[in-house]
Amino acid sequence: MAVANSGNPPSRISEISKRLPRSLPHTTMAGQISEKREAVDLSHHLSDFAKTLETRLSFGGPPLQPGTISMDGGVPDTEYFPIESITVEYLKPAAFSLTPTEVVPSAPGVLGWLANVLTGKKATDEFTISRRLRSDDESKFELKTALQYSPITGLPAFENILSQLVTRVHKPAYSNYRTLVDVGASAGWSSCLEILLNPGDSFLTDRYAYNAALMQARPRGVQAVAVGTDFDGLSAVDLERVLSTWDEVKQGKRPRVIYTQGGIHNPTGLLIPAQRKKDIYDVAVRYDLIIVEDDPYWYQVASHSYRRGAPTPEPKSITDDEWLDDLVPSFLRFDYQGRVIRLDTFSKSIGPGGRLGYYTTSPVLLERLQALHQAYISFPSGVTQSIFGELLHRWQTQGFARWLRGLTAQYELRRNRTIDALYDALDVRQRDQWSPVLMAFARNNGQMSEKFKPAKSLMSFTPPDGGMFIWFAIHLHNHPRFHSLSRQTSPAAAKTALAEELWTSIADAGVVFRRGELFAVESAEVRAEQGEEDVFMRASFSSGPLEDLEKAMKIFSTVLVKFFE
Amino acid sequence: MAVANSGNPPSRISEISKRLPRSLPHTTMAGQISEKREAVDLSHHLSDFAKTLETRLSFGGPPLQPGTISMDGGVPDTEYFPIESITVEYLKPAAFSLTPTEVVPSAPGVLGWLANVLTGKKATDEFTISRRLRSDDESKFELKTALQYSPITGLPAFENILSQLVTRVHKPAYSNYRTLVDVGASAGWSSCLEILLNPGDSFLTDRYAYNAALMQARPRGVQAVAVGTDFDGLSAVDLERVLSTWDEVKQGKRPRVIYTQGGIHNPTGLLIPAQRKKDIYDVAVRYDLIIVEDDPYWYQVASHSYRRGAPTPEPKSITDDEWLDDLVPSFLRFDYQGRVIRLDTFSKSIGPGGRLGYYTTSPVLLERLQALHQAYISFPSGVTQSIFGELLHRWQTQGFARWLRGLTAQYELRRNRTIDALYDALDVRQRDQWSPVLMAFARNNGQMSEKFKPAKSLMSFTPPDGGMFIWFAIHLHNHPRFHSLSRQTSPAAAKTALAEELWTSIADAGVVFRRGELFAVESAEVRAEQGEEDVFMRASFSSGPLEDLEKAMKIFSTVLVKFFE
Repeated sequence: MAVANSGNPPSRISEISKRLPRSLPHTTMAGQISEKREAVDLSHHLSDFAKTLETRLSFGGPPLQPGTISMDGGVPDTEYFPIESITVEYLKPAAFSLTPTEVVPSAPGVLGWLANVLTGKKATDEFTISRRLRSDDESKFELKTALQYSPITGLPAFENILSQLVTRVHKPAYSNYRTLVDVGASAGWSSCLEILLNPGDSFLTDRYAYNAALMQARPRGVQAVAVGTDFDGLSAVDLERVLSTWDEVKQGKRPRVIYTQGGIHNPTGLLIPAQRKKDIYDVAVRYDLIIVEDDPYWYQVASHSYRRGAPTPEPKSITDDEWLDDLVPSFLRFDYQGRVIRLDTFSKSIGPGGRLGYYTTSPVLLERLQALHQAYISFPSGVTQSIFGELLHRWQTQGFARWLRGLTAQYELRRNRTIDALYDALDVRQRDQWSPVLMAFARNNGQMSEKFKPAKSLMSFTPPDGGMFIWFAIHLHNHPRFHSLSRQTSPAAAKTALAEELWTSIADAGVVFRRGELFAVESAEVRAEQGEEDVFMRASFSSGPLEDLEKAMKIFSTVLVKFFE
Repeated sequence: MAVANSGNPPSRISEISKRLPRSLPHTTMAGQISEKREAVDLSHHLSDFAKTLETRLSFGGPPLQPGTISMDGGVPDTEYFPIESITVEYLKPAAFSLTPTEVVPSAPGVLGWLANVLTGKKATDEFTISRRLRSDDESKFELKTALQYSPITGLPAFENILSQLVTRVHKPAYSNYRTLVDVGASAGWSSCLEILLNPGDSFLTDRYAYNAALMQARPRGVQAVAVGTDFDGLSAVDLERVLSTWDEVKQGKRPRVIYTQGGIHNPTGLLIPAQRKKDIYDVAVRYDLIIVEDDPYWYQVASHSYRRGAPTPEPKSITDDEWLDDLVPSFLRFDYQGRVIRLDTFSKSIGPGGRLGYYTTSPVLLERLQALHQAYISFPSGVTQSIFGELLHRWQTQGFARWLRGLTAQYELRRNRTIDALYDALDVRQRDQWSPVLMAFARNNGQMSEKFKPAKSLMSFTPPDGGMFIWFAIHLHNHPRFHSLSRQTSPAAAKTALAEELWTSIADAGVVFRRGELFAVESAEVRAEQGEEDVFMRASFSSGPLEDLEKAMKIFSTVLVKFFE
């Protein structure tokens, strides 16, 4: 059996990079428009609920004249807040190496403290948010506003930071984009469901999609419709097929919304390259779709595709600014009409406990999201906004980029070591020389020379482009009991039963994966009819010591081999 | 005209106190039950939406065995959070006097700092929340959990604090009550609407109710139904009338939910005494209603009713513990069946910018609120939970009580001075010796001796029992143009036009009130048919210097007198 050179798949990222122009002038990418134009009117996409949401009268109506005494709101005096100041000790942007050989090896708190005290090389810095800004204050935030009711749009200083970030990083192709703070991307998607879709409507998404996103849609009576995917994520061709063959008599109203994760996809770990995003966007324009782009892992793109034997992340010799420019562009970059709602979050860059994120979209859509917030969450914690905001202010965009690069190197190392451990425990081979897919076989088993029959693969996976997850396709059709079970019940039922048995065996052996079934848009029966052979499991390599990840892969491999015997 | 002694109304609070037993043994208040029982099953109250909400599979299903490696969630390693520590400088519980003569006179920050540095009498204290707790740490919170994904129920240490607080302060009459964190009481009410009511349903509330609560219900297709009120708030008798005469053929389904604010009501400023709460609760049991008790001002009960010439709050000689026990009880105290959903918030006790509050209710209702949070907001900011939580932990319940008492004295002083300023600018008289209502007339005008006709009142109001608001009833039926305008259009239209004219005149003179219309459940026409003569405006005395409040009352009085000429 021919095996490609050194058993390593071709580098996905470098291929993608070739297709990714360094700069994407909207003059060419956005349909020969020489200057950025304003968004088109997409108000016909609003749900019935969105149309009835009231815009709250601002405090007292028209802006107050200077000197006016407002007895309008029910607002405590800012002197009644019991907190005088909040002092935050934070890591410097370069805290994490770009060429780590270990994940942060022990508490950086302890290391940082030791470094600060013993070596004089300060790993941390600090800022103080006081009750009120003084004229000599470097800070942008003050508790008198952070602890007070604020506009639905959040603290103005935080809004400024977001606006600068979007302009610098995502460069939307239209002129009047705006941001709005929310309490994280999950809540953001729920809000999108509320303002865009009526019960009975449906939306398009990857065949396997983020499980929480599906879970949020179901109780709202909104159906997900699967679009096929390949190594470049959501297929523009299949999207076109689904839309062009849609039969409203049989299938109900044609979907008007796409939900996808274009940076690094959850659960597959793959990204949508620039050209594919443009193709999807063009279909969206033709069929008048809204694209909801949920992109928590946008920056976590590994510097290189996984290569056996090159476990240490090798950073490109580029500046942090160039690194930012080099990231796969957001759908926003192609959005010359304002039909993208981008969901950003600080959960994967600062901390999920902050429950802080933001939308970027065109004014009409954003205004309705704002009205929804007025009728529900109001605004995200001003305490979090001020602490995260001041951190971003102190770091500046370039420092934030360096911080994200350091985190990305950590995740890349984790990915590499996790896959290395699979190579150590199983016989891992590239499927063929044109494919990034790695096939895993039992070691010293199924050698053609021994039993004169080809080895049967146990599972396969595509090394993720970055992010936190490996998406294992378990080859249950190769399981010795599959065919008899299939005949007794059905192929779908047989796979479901075997998958559950395997998941439980892995858990009993001390490793918990997430069942792929949770991410499936279609039922097991539909997938079986479409000829899908594999059953999926998602493994997260995002936390814990490297040794645990390696041990987990060893356990998984052992259980897998035994399970297929 | 007979005027009562010194022109002062009878003390509402002392009257109420008489009716308020010091302890409310559930043995007598909750229907002769000798021991607290568990809540009854109220799942038939859940909305269709609530029934379809999924309970998210917890991370990996069954609890993990010790030593299990979880590759299930998409959770960043806690070492990847850039914040090492958060140090908070906070006011001590007794920072504000119980007998203030001025509202916090200048920045307590500056004062606190001066006191700390110069006098050695420390007004502030501080705590540090570190990345992880050390064994010698006094703190209850650590950033490793505060910045991480947490259970929907929030940080366990915060949940403990809430549970202790409810048990100590509100003493529910059933045994298995639970709390759940949310992002403030407004969001809490929205969630209650979602899990309890279907579009087309209705809920019962005070004739004039918190405007945001009404605004949140409307786009959800849920109608508010007005219940009459008196000086003791929502009328149990009128509640009984509305329910017993409800005609489902004409009026649609009978309401199953009451929304009210029982501590201090917004906008009226009045509280519902213990006996009235019990009466309402009994009606709720009879008609199988859920009571949603939104109670942001529960602790802001003035130590005394307003009395002209006694502007300084006079604290009762009781301990802070006794003060807590002396507060008007929550509906929870009478809730032996678990049919109350109480909404608490830290907006008026620590700071609204934290967006932090909690529900207290029975397990079935709470579980569905939790499922809704899973499908939407997840959990409130862990940063806020840890900072507010640590503050509450350092203060302890007794310190928190003292802090609230200090704030209450500030609000009481504000109330007193605001009403004093009206006495100074207008001729204010008690309506009659049995009534707490104060009537305001123009000074030196309408003396019977001059024109041989009785003076016409300009407006009236009931001095609030506490809280932040005065609810002015403007006597537009006494306005010289009212009758001609009424004949040309209608009484309702005449009042609406005059009210708008007056509101604008007051705003033009530099004072902004909130239009009473925003709080009205019924239309102006319905209210006119029911013989309502007044038009209302709400004035908040919650913030700004006392001089501003006094100046505002003077301006208001001047405009009012001129307007009625």
